[in-house]
Amino acid sequence: MSIRIGIYGYGNLGKGVELAIKQNQDMVAVGVFTRRPPESVKTLTGIPVYSASDVENMRDKIDVMIICGGSATDLPTQTPALAKLFNVVDSFDTHAKIPQHAANVQAAAEGAKTTAIISAGWDPGMFSLARLYSSAILPNGKDYTFWGKGVSQGHSDAVRRIDGVLDARQYTVPIDGAINAVRAGQTPDLSTAEKHERVCFVVAKEGADKARIEEEIKTMPNYFADYKTTVHFISAEEMEKEHSGLPHGGEVLRIGKTGANGEHTHVVGYSLKLDSNPEFTASVLVACARAAIRLNEGGMYGAKTLFDVPPAYLSTQSREELLGKLL
Amino acid sequence: MSIRIGIYGYGNLGKGVELAIKQNQDMVAVGVFTRRPPESVKTLTGIPVYSASDVENMRDKIDVMIICGGSATDLPTQTPALAKLFNVVDSFDTHAKIPQHAANVQAAAEGAKTTAIISAGWDPGMFSLARLYSSAILPNGKDYTFWGKGVSQGHSDAVRRIDGVLDARQYTVPIDGAINAVRAGQTPDLSTAEKHERVCFVVAKEGADKARIEEEIKTMPNYFADYKTTVHFISAEEMEKEHSGLPHGGEVLRIGKTGANGEHTHVVGYSLKLDSNPEFTASVLVACARAAIRLNEGGMYGAKTLFDVPPAYLSTQSREELLGKLL
Repeated sequence: MSIRIGIYGYGNLGKGVELAIKQNQDMVAVGVFTRRPPESVKTLTGIPVYSASDVENMRDKIDVMIICGGSATDLPTQTPALAKLFNVVDSFDTHAKIPQHAANVQAAAEGAKTTAIISAGWDPGMFSLARLYSSAILPNGKDYTFWGKGVSQGHSDAVRRIDGVLDARQYTVPIDGAINAVRAGQTPDLSTAEKHERVCFVVAKEGADKARIEEEIKTMPNYFADYKTTVHFISAEEMEKEHSGLPHGGEVLRIGKTGANGEHTHVVGYSLKLDSNPEFTASVLVACARAAIRLNEGGMYGAKTLFDVPPAYLSTQSREELLGKLL
Repeated sequence: MSIRIGIYGYGNLGKGVELAIKQNQDMVAVGVFTRRPPESVKTLTGIPVYSASDVENMRDKIDVMIICGGSATDLPTQTPALAKLFNVVDSFDTHAKIPQHAANVQAAAEGAKTTAIISAGWDPGMFSLARLYSSAILPNGKDYTFWGKGVSQGHSDAVRRIDGVLDARQYTVPIDGAINAVRAGQTPDLSTAEKHERVCFVVAKEGADKARIEEEIKTMPNYFADYKTTVHFISAEEMEKEHSGLPHGGEVLRIGKTGANGEHTHVVGYSLKLDSNPEFTASVLVACARAAIRLNEGGMYGAKTLFDVPPAYLSTQSREELLGKLL
């Protein structure tokens, strides 16, 4: 019996989920649910499109709903509402609001005896797991998370809102000296701004004052003012040709000490280099859908995260294969 | 209530466990169990030493026994025997024999309603987790495991057995060209010998035929014959000064493809650089002892591996801390 997956929301992430399901032979994509007129949406692989308002009628046809909305306004209401009807997976990534989101989803899912895996993806998600494992193993140590090189959508949007800007792309880039020091086992005190620089590519309107745009970017509070920021003005053609992808990645490092007097240093690193941020995130969500079903079958209801998932639950491989080949 | 840990066996690994427990404030080391005369053993931190034959009398005083014997002859009998008395953790690392070991331990632990986490450490262990997570997320992909730079005890011992050799240390070293190609997202077909070279440091007996020793090393089947091997003859003093540590490490990489036509490449890497192989392995075992208690309290009896452990079970942090700070 294939695991029957619904996809709620059909932007970059929803499209990534649709493609990822094709790589997993134990699953089938039942369809996409959209708030747009269904007939206006054409899916990549031809799976059906339903209206989001019809979702209640599909309870018997879907084992897990993967919710592909945004963290700012969609997921805080969508995940609790859908967890009353389905096992769900989301990628809620506003770190400071995760405890509140978890509490809201817990209340909905517990009552409905569904399982909701929230905040899956890579940060939160795989990077969180890297932080948890290495801090549990090496309690006497220090964590570092570097992001990039990759496109930050929030920072790109902030630049786009400046008067005179037609289009913009912002790359977050780890500072070589900082990341190399940590990889070598050093434990410097580093702020986020001391770990990363920001590189902007901007298409300006004809006749716009580029010096003023650059100044507005570099002095923008929170987003850029504290960082070393570089601004490049390019043509719309170059933007399309060189900067249309959504690469991202980064590295989580822990430097831990052991021995009678902390004389031995250990460097644990987890790194991602992703050609497509949404497709990798989608791939994590799809593996979590498999785990959600298994948790639910074991009576583990409520709001869960990757911290609660036995790793074997994510895999299609049998216990025999896991012990015999992968361990 | 502290978790009360027993340490069964007191070589490098047992000493590492003793030191690691000191870093974990929710635990206490009850004592060491040895097959040697207890009065002949002096512990690093002054914890008591008991005879291995007294272990049955300590059932009420120990929550988890960490078994620090060797995989070749100790663990195959020790782990099933001790799992009848205690929750246990071991580092059984003969990959080909893990399924049989798991079956033996399962039979013992299930009947006694104890929980046994077997084959913990870094390979098998953390490297296995890296392989499992990334293959579950990116099913269309290819795995690579590189070991080193680090001391291989088995290969060092093999060189020591050659006539005319007083002492030897063998380092396994990943081949730069191979590891860099994979890190860059390429997927070459590589044998173990194409991924690693072997570097030997040898102290020869006075007057021994060094050319013959070097030839015997380089042509030794299984251990060296298939590898690029370099042999350095050094003095006993240099061996003591430069090669007395037990560093190790390595890197697990998966290259995965996503997209409608596999057009996006993702590189997932997990790396370890360890000053002390036994102390890091011991640190993993100690975190697993915490998980073993929690699994047992949840009624999950029998032989388990890190694949079965919800990551949160390894950590001292509360759910609130994990969701609020680490996720």
